[in-house]
Amino acid sequence: MLDIRHTSDECRRVRTIDWDDGAVVIIDQTALPHEERMLRLTTVDELVQAINLLAVRGAMALGVAGAMGVALAAHSAERSGVDADVDAAVDAAAAALVEARPTAVNLGWGVRTALAARAGGAPALLAAALQVRDLDIAANLEIGRRSAGVLAGTSRILTHCNAGALAGSEWGTALSAIVQLHSRSPLEMVYTCETRPLMQGSRLTAWELGRADIPHRVIVDSASSGIILRGEVGAVVVGADRIAANGDTANKVGTLAHALAARRRGIPFVVAAPEATIDLGTPSGAHIQIEERDEREVLDLAGSRVAAPGSHAYNPAFDVTPADLITAIVTERRTIRPSLGERPTTFVP
Amino acid sequence: MLDIRHTSDECRRVRTIDWDDGAVVIIDQTALPHEERMLRLTTVDELVQAINLLAVRGAMALGVAGAMGVALAAHSAERSGVDADVDAAVDAAAAALVEARPTAVNLGWGVRTALAARAGGAPALLAAALQVRDLDIAANLEIGRRSAGVLAGTSRILTHCNAGALAGSEWGTALSAIVQLHSRSPLEMVYTCETRPLMQGSRLTAWELGRADIPHRVIVDSASSGIILRGEVGAVVVGADRIAANGDTANKVGTLAHALAARRRGIPFVVAAPEATIDLGTPSGAHIQIEERDEREVLDLAGSRVAAPGSHAYNPAFDVTPADLITAIVTERRTIRPSLGERPTTFVP
Repeated sequence: MLDIRHTSDECRRVRTIDWDDGAVVIIDQTALPHEERMLRLTTVDELVQAINLLAVRGAMALGVAGAMGVALAAHSAERSGVDADVDAAVDAAAAALVEARPTAVNLGWGVRTALAARAGGAPALLAAALQVRDLDIAANLEIGRRSAGVLAGTSRILTHCNAGALAGSEWGTALSAIVQLHSRSPLEMVYTCETRPLMQGSRLTAWELGRADIPHRVIVDSASSGIILRGEVGAVVVGADRIAANGDTANKVGTLAHALAARRRGIPFVVAAPEATIDLGTPSGAHIQIEERDEREVLDLAGSRVAAPGSHAYNPAFDVTPADLITAIVTERRTIRPSLGERPTTFVP
Repeated sequence: MLDIRHTSDECRRVRTIDWDDGAVVIIDQTALPHEERMLRLTTVDELVQAINLLAVRGAMALGVAGAMGVALAAHSAERSGVDADVDAAVDAAAAALVEARPTAVNLGWGVRTALAARAGGAPALLAAALQVRDLDIAANLEIGRRSAGVLAGTSRILTHCNAGALAGSEWGTALSAIVQLHSRSPLEMVYTCETRPLMQGSRLTAWELGRADIPHRVIVDSASSGIILRGEVGAVVVGADRIAANGDTANKVGTLAHALAARRRGIPFVVAAPEATIDLGTPSGAHIQIEERDEREVLDLAGSRVAAPGSHAYNPAFDVTPADLITAIVTERRTIRPSLGERPTTFVP
């Protein structure tokens, strides 16, 4: 069950997505930070819609969502009676889930991981999905521990979007690093970029930093370059949506600007992400398809048109940071140094 | 008279501020882009209020406003009868206008320029004010013409904030360049960064580009780096708030990120600004004080709190682009190439 009480450090963790008695239960991230609302999703359609609306989001949470979605389809089909075609339901669910966010490599990975257990029927699919969740929690802890080691000695950090607990099933990646760094030696300041157009940094990361009692300030995304060049930041740490075989890394639009500024100032730019984010089938960033989202996300604010009438927007959801700008890619298994020429394909710890 | 008809290229120009038969007439920028509303200001109090509310804004337009305000005071006093103390009215107006936005250097400059003609009475003051307007128009035209020359051959441009007609009395700087470039050879695309937090790019620049029938798309500010590195932009052109003696340039927050990306991709980064923007008393960007604005501009959207409850923001309004990243600074008199080592202090055309 989801635990969002604030009674102890232990309970400051956020269980973003979980399974409960035939339903996928998520914390509705579109309602945060003003309301902590749980959604109980009992059909794959509901889950796909939740993924589309970003009620559940973030690479690792989407991996868990993909696996649980497949389990949910099998569970519902078996429950519906003797004539149910479980195989067809599972296939349809897998296709719909992968299509929900085509750039999110973990979503497809979660789906495939669950599918590998399909011979065992619904119980095996559920067991596989729960294992994806448990491995995710363990991986996030380890990513945070390793990243905190890479960042040791830094007291002023900048991060982008939400690579926190809300992006994983419990701990997150970049924010797991920040939380563990802070627990070793108190941080002076974390700058959380608001992350236009959907404001995940302002809404979600600021909310998580507040819960963790870490000093922080929200900034407009484009303020980062000036703040970094003025020497107010010691390191940048972000998550990743997809890492190509050469180390080029796709992440939320805006990430690349932080990497360019970090290079100019000579501070570390660290990517904290699970191994599953590494896509060896994609040779380089040039092969990563950039998802383009609805222009209204840019043209409207809080549901009202702000942009000039008749004007249109271009709304790429991601950008690609070239490997040579990345100081370290930290996974649960290894620390790769792309700016020193190490590559995910060739580097074994 | 203000002309906002769309019937010809000539009429697509925006006369942001003008004089008409005893009144200062402005386009109300607080109503844009959703309503094209003219304000007819017949007293200095009304003009001061319009300046306070940012109904008229932008360094160059404020210079014209200052000069016309002094002329308006003299005109009203002379008209009111034989007992009127024109000198006292002019002095009171000058003080009130300068106080309306004490940090706006051009406002005070416009007031002083008009005052120099006070010996000739109201007609001389009005003539001086109209000359301030005409010189501004001529300077903007020349900045645009020279910048368009520097940018020749480029069909895809990125710009930031609003350095258009609405910031001057007619043509603007960066947007003057874009409009003149487009009239020589049609542009394929102009990307206008929305310009968080106050959205001048989305509201004002997009409106001006639409009026000029120039193909354009609004983007979130942080999308620029990815778009530039993917090769979708041929050049960046922006305005400036202050240019230091060494060429370091302060402009709206977000400008620096575009310059870093332009350098990485090897495309021109051009600053279009009047000579008056060059401040030889400021040795370098390190000496430029960065205005910090109200955190609510970042934390709220359309008047409603978006950020996590309890979180605070850091809201610097400007950033400084180092001279070595600037391909050209184009004024009405010269083209300085800072990335080649030319400096405003030393370079004479």
